[in-house]
Amino acid sequence: MEKVKPTLLRGFDQEYLPQDQLHFNRLVELIRTSFERYGFLPIETPSAERREVLTSKGGVEKEIYALTRLAEADDDEAATKGALRFDLTVPLARYVAMRNRDLAFPFRRYQIQRVWRGETPQANKGRFREFYQCDIDIIGREKLSYLAEAEIPSVIYSVFREMKIGEFRIRINNRKVLKGLLREFSVKDEKAGAVLRILDKGEKEDVRAQLQREGVSAELHQLVSEKRDTRQTLDLLAKFKECEQGAAELKAVVEAIRQFGVPDSAFGVDLGIVRGLDYYTGTIYETSLTGHPEVGSVCSGGRYDDLASHFSDTRFPGVGISIGLTRLFSRLKEAGLLQPLARTPAEVLVTTMDRQHLDKYLRMAATLRAAGINTEVYLEEAKIGNQLAYADRKGFRVALIAGENEFAQGTVQVKNLSAKTAREIPLDRLVAAVKETLDGA
Amino acid sequence: MEKVKPTLLRGFDQEYLPQDQLHFNRLVELIRTSFERYGFLPIETPSAERREVLTSKGGVEKEIYALTRLAEADDDEAATKGALRFDLTVPLARYVAMRNRDLAFPFRRYQIQRVWRGETPQANKGRFREFYQCDIDIIGREKLSYLAEAEIPSVIYSVFREMKIGEFRIRINNRKVLKGLLREFSVKDEKAGAVLRILDKGEKEDVRAQLQREGVSAELHQLVSEKRDTRQTLDLLAKFKECEQGAAELKAVVEAIRQFGVPDSAFGVDLGIVRGLDYYTGTIYETSLTGHPEVGSVCSGGRYDDLASHFSDTRFPGVGISIGLTRLFSRLKEAGLLQPLARTPAEVLVTTMDRQHLDKYLRMAATLRAAGINTEVYLEEAKIGNQLAYADRKGFRVALIAGENEFAQGTVQVKNLSAKTAREIPLDRLVAAVKETLDGA
Repeated sequence: MEKVKPTLLRGFDQEYLPQDQLHFNRLVELIRTSFERYGFLPIETPSAERREVLTSKGGVEKEIYALTRLAEADDDEAATKGALRFDLTVPLARYVAMRNRDLAFPFRRYQIQRVWRGETPQANKGRFREFYQCDIDIIGREKLSYLAEAEIPSVIYSVFREMKIGEFRIRINNRKVLKGLLREFSVKDEKAGAVLRILDKGEKEDVRAQLQREGVSAELHQLVSEKRDTRQTLDLLAKFKECEQGAAELKAVVEAIRQFGVPDSAFGVDLGIVRGLDYYTGTIYETSLTGHPEVGSVCSGGRYDDLASHFSDTRFPGVGISIGLTRLFSRLKEAGLLQPLARTPAEVLVTTMDRQHLDKYLRMAATLRAAGINTEVYLEEAKIGNQLAYADRKGFRVALIAGENEFAQGTVQVKNLSAKTAREIPLDRLVAAVKETLDGA
Repeated sequence: MEKVKPTLLRGFDQEYLPQDQLHFNRLVELIRTSFERYGFLPIETPSAERREVLTSKGGVEKEIYALTRLAEADDDEAATKGALRFDLTVPLARYVAMRNRDLAFPFRRYQIQRVWRGETPQANKGRFREFYQCDIDIIGREKLSYLAEAEIPSVIYSVFREMKIGEFRIRINNRKVLKGLLREFSVKDEKAGAVLRILDKGEKEDVRAQLQREGVSAELHQLVSEKRDTRQTLDLLAKFKECEQGAAELKAVVEAIRQFGVPDSAFGVDLGIVRGLDYYTGTIYETSLTGHPEVGSVCSGGRYDDLASHFSDTRFPGVGISIGLTRLFSRLKEAGLLQPLARTPAEVLVTTMDRQHLDKYLRMAATLRAAGINTEVYLEEAKIGNQLAYADRKGFRVALIAGENEFAQGTVQVKNLSAKTAREIPLDRLVAAVKETLDGA
């Protein structure tokens, strides 16, 4: 038979071996648990939405994957009007507009799902066409306290601290501060969007020349890109009349972030944080790993005034942040920053030396499973050496071995596969003995 | 501003409110834990694969959603050669062919992901265009013991028992038995596929007339559709010479399923189980809810001889089963069979009667979270009555209330929101008192 080459599509290629998938799943679980710890509730939205929903904010058409049918089909609006979501924020806006009568506000939701973007994939920068985002948002109806803007970094602080990925820094800024600075430097309002998008490129490109072309002074560029600590920045902003409101907001949020328990070592004001999207109106966030600047921002977001303006007359102000998990995972793995797994699901392998006794092997397995211990029974006919080789390969921590002799005496051998030690124990001590071995006793 | 109507695409509409999403997530977690309990390891595969990979088995083109770009784009093979997976088996075949050197065989994998099919949506039958599948497969390299065919139903038995969804029945059959019966009734080999696909429709359509058109006797139809218990069926099969091998296999698998701990009340042989796909070669499974026949099969699968024949010269025999979770969830919900959640993530709301004391409220929350209790602080300015109304609406179980008086005395009121009772406790007993209330003490 002619074979099809088993390969993946470029950018749709973040597929892991089971050991890495376990690791990835543990991170998802950690994030989910942390989000729930702070009172966020889960939602999931369909992968495909109406194109007019996805493009309602405008400006993203060029990155969207639409759906079509491989063969002609009648009556399939998904294929004529549907496309894959490119983020979790637009679906959230549609969700809130559609279901607000059934939600309690402020609505605190988390969402951990894949998104799809037709960008140019760059594996070494962690940029893919299909990737996971882990979002939290707090959405008010008509109003939302600035305290929500302070709580968001505290949740992220808790998540990243628990991940044990080394030092990180949540850098914050305020869009009103940025707009005030533009006015101070006489950038006209209608140019503000374009200038902010240039500033957003940071040091990556020839920003200074681009700004010059827009008639922006080098002084402004220097002001936003110079490094200062939080106090210095707030002092500096006090000098600019146009920044008054933004600076006051930023100061209040900084103070509240401290109250929410985030130490100054883990966050700070950085005027260079811009977040190009027009969407943001207040505090904005980016997060980087201190020891690994090359990884770039692993978590970003901000405050917005009106989440669902394209779908509803009700105003839903909110604040949210997004962890780009596929990207973060790929960079952590590359940088060797993934903590070893405390526990794999492959805990105990019951080897089957003598398949006559299958019932006894199965009973051992049932006993261990009932005690919450993950247990597999080796079902193929194979020499015990091959069974143990399989156990090593899959990463089991304990193997049980028993044959005619052991069964006659009511015992079983418990083999610690990492320490390469074994001991014979009475069958009625099975659960306790296996737990001791798993706990490293 | 002109508004876009916030609606979903037909068939891409299984989107839940947070309370239902929590329920769904708990089922996923239960399934995941059970699968890992039996030594299955997780994988996830990309949503989109090469079209030639997806269509390698043939015959599915008409249900596949392909990707295209909404705007013109260069160099995007996903948009010219990619399509969304319609099941988890073809991606598994590609995965195994691609990565078999890195896997331990027998390879036991589970996969819980969405799939997409351009079928006609029928909400009342739980048929959607986007839905979750939860698959397990055991895949051998060149060989695989029949015991794997017996273990699969025992895993499913464990999952459904734990779900507490009432009585269910795993019905099994064997493709060799079916093919033997066709030979007994003189159906030519080249017609076998067509006849099995007709039989697969069960009682749903005018099966008898269709069989007649294929020249199949009514006796065969009666034979496969009549209800018998497992022993009667095995006795009956002993009469048919052409079924010898299949009947022997089926009998061995039945005996092993019992050894694996599945009671006869939860499984049985049913000659009416056909599984239309040519793909299956041995034991086949379907699972139904005894009290709710209208729900149809909620879990099905079978044994196959060669998973990755389209991708590899190596033979990978396997056996697998798939839970259609979106469908199951939709039907369980409709039938009122969802068990109430033992625990919601919304456990404790710290109300903020006097925002001057924000630091103290935040400290209470931090203390509770450190003890593993999900805790939210109410951050908006609102009367205490409105804060408690929010707590009720979101389903919190406990509210903490403290103001000038309580803080002066170092106490806090712990309000049990379901029992509508409250007590004042010293702050240093906070964790213990909240736990007592959550535990229903």
